[in-house]
Amino acid sequence: MLLSKLDQSDTRPVIPLGHGDPSAFPCFRTTQIAEDAIVDSIRSAKFNGYGPTVGILPARRAVAEYLSQDLPNKLSPDDVFLTLGCTQAIQTIVTVLTNPKANILLPKPGFPYYEAIAKSCQLEVRHFDLLPDKDWEVDLDSVNALADENTVAMVIINPGNPCGNVFTHQHLQKVAETAKKLGILVISDEVYDHIAFGKNPFVPMATFASITPIITLGSISKRWIVPGWRLGWLVINDPNGILKQHGIIDCITAYLNISSDAPTFIQGAAPDILAKTKEDFFLKIVNIIKEDANICIEGIQDIPGIICPSKPEGSMFVMVKLDLSVFEDIKDDVDFCVKLAKEESVIILPGISVGLNNWLRVTFAIEPSVLEEGIKRLKKFCQRHSKKP
Amino acid sequence: MLLSKLDQSDTRPVIPLGHGDPSAFPCFRTTQIAEDAIVDSIRSAKFNGYGPTVGILPARRAVAEYLSQDLPNKLSPDDVFLTLGCTQAIQTIVTVLTNPKANILLPKPGFPYYEAIAKSCQLEVRHFDLLPDKDWEVDLDSVNALADENTVAMVIINPGNPCGNVFTHQHLQKVAETAKKLGILVISDEVYDHIAFGKNPFVPMATFASITPIITLGSISKRWIVPGWRLGWLVINDPNGILKQHGIIDCITAYLNISSDAPTFIQGAAPDILAKTKEDFFLKIVNIIKEDANICIEGIQDIPGIICPSKPEGSMFVMVKLDLSVFEDIKDDVDFCVKLAKEESVIILPGISVGLNNWLRVTFAIEPSVLEEGIKRLKKFCQRHSKKP
Repeated sequence: MLLSKLDQSDTRPVIPLGHGDPSAFPCFRTTQIAEDAIVDSIRSAKFNGYGPTVGILPARRAVAEYLSQDLPNKLSPDDVFLTLGCTQAIQTIVTVLTNPKANILLPKPGFPYYEAIAKSCQLEVRHFDLLPDKDWEVDLDSVNALADENTVAMVIINPGNPCGNVFTHQHLQKVAETAKKLGILVISDEVYDHIAFGKNPFVPMATFASITPIITLGSISKRWIVPGWRLGWLVINDPNGILKQHGIIDCITAYLNISSDAPTFIQGAAPDILAKTKEDFFLKIVNIIKEDANICIEGIQDIPGIICPSKPEGSMFVMVKLDLSVFEDIKDDVDFCVKLAKEESVIILPGISVGLNNWLRVTFAIEPSVLEEGIKRLKKFCQRHSKKP
Repeated sequence: MLLSKLDQSDTRPVIPLGHGDPSAFPCFRTTQIAEDAIVDSIRSAKFNGYGPTVGILPARRAVAEYLSQDLPNKLSPDDVFLTLGCTQAIQTIVTVLTNPKANILLPKPGFPYYEAIAKSCQLEVRHFDLLPDKDWEVDLDSVNALADENTVAMVIINPGNPCGNVFTHQHLQKVAETAKKLGILVISDEVYDHIAFGKNPFVPMATFASITPIITLGSISKRWIVPGWRLGWLVINDPNGILKQHGIIDCITAYLNISSDAPTFIQGAAPDILAKTKEDFFLKIVNIIKEDANICIEGIQDIPGIICPSKPEGSMFVMVKLDLSVFEDIKDDVDFCVKLAKEESVIILPGISVGLNNWLRVTFAIEPSVLEEGIKRLKKFCQRHSKKP
């Protein structure tokens, strides 16, 4: 919608601060190790055929080993289901948990794909708040108030989309304890795993799997900057065997049996991608994103009408609040974003699309020089639309 | 299930006559042009990001041009939706056509994935017969008898899975006329397009799109022997704009918006794969499959208890009938296939799994020398289990 508002006579390049895919920028090119892994896989001609619907064993083992590095319990390949990016992992678990009376607890603000899938399954959605004044922590009181005997799961996204927060070890433990008390599953969307550059290190939710069952969703999309490769996973962290006992594992397998799989040769490349990528590549990427976050936050501090209650410490996003009283002729967040696209060729997502009216979701993970230009245009735009004294 | 019945002490190689994926056999290795196209696409780093949910334009255009070669009307890229192999194309169209009262007409025997998806959507299925004594033509009388005002579509698979038949131009025209009379859509599954080696050339159903709307499903899986690459398509052939008028195109787009896409770099390789592959590669593959079909049919003629009513002329399969009266100790097709797996390490699909009790579906597209060995074991098995005079 916003793209259609762009002024075609504006000769300046469009600045995309709207979606989490920096792959087009040269500084975010993926590691050659990942490209080589795909090339080797295709040249081997070993992975041209159909694979098992849950994924090929070497790739499942590779994901289990990759994730186990950060966990107290070691995962087995049987705990891992390969999916088409993280989106198919979301689709799978939401569909599997659906029953006519069930409801699921989703964060607000959140990632709208969860709502879209729940709606397509006719699964009732209830929203708990994330608290901007507490670094976007989960409002556990609202979780407690919303849950009832038909609640099947709660979703957290960590590092956060759209909030750019990273949950502390202590907070995640409280989430696990709350879920245990309520008898619900925690679905932990960790598609931005390890993209953390603030005071809190990334802690996988599965650290607390002995408290309550955790399903981790992830992919290579963000850490390797290859969202178009569509390799993701759904991982069972359930040392007490509760999900198996309730038949959830069988349902996941049955669902994947009638779903499309990640191409076999991409699965064939997974062991090399996951095991051979060097730490310096990850560090380079996180450092650029950190630099971007700083450019974004420092720039926004000087802009009238935009307030940032919590500095981003992870993922690729920040949520900022509009103070509409500052502006002369801006009705709401959508109006802001439409006018910004038209006048400055800058794309920013209105907060309403992630559940918060009159906020903005800014994606800062782009080439730093382009981001600087984008923030300049944003400032000019806000100054131009401010009430005159 | 059959694989679990194999005798682990049998040192002979397992002979897989059960599924349509010959990619593991060296003689069926795909063309280097296709491999190069993937390598070039990944090395370009242009296709690491998300693509549009309907597919990237160059790939949609390439499919439109590829299919238009055989059609009276030229397709536009807008008519083409890229999918994850043909299975996601099936899933998409079946889901989109579902409404609480609707029913769909499927062939018997058929491809069981259609039933599985219809069941998961709670779409009512009605089966029309394919006629073994008429080269597996559609029993149009049974189509007429089954259809009512809630019938939304009929499915044909051409070249045929599991029957190995290729419909004539004349018969396809009758199918189109029947569908027009009934006011239903024809879904033509052409995943085995151009794999035809008998008296009838392959004719795309869309040849008759001016009579009634046709949705063509296809992929590179079979003709290029790369089912694991998961690149397919759903194509609208509707010169009269009937589907657009009924909102079907919008529903397809909406469904694909919440589905996972084919990896962008595989889409990026599609133009080269579709336009540059040489005719001699296709010819080589079809000739091996034809040789296989002959080995299979000539071999089966000598086997007691197995009758082939119609010689295969396309795809990779043949349906053969069991004459149970010949055997001493075979209860039914499942019993036959279980004992065959156990005693001879040969995997064949029981007919019941494609809708015909006491038939077998034999996949003959494997390395010819391996097929010869398989047919020998099958003969030995049938002789051993025949009633003694």
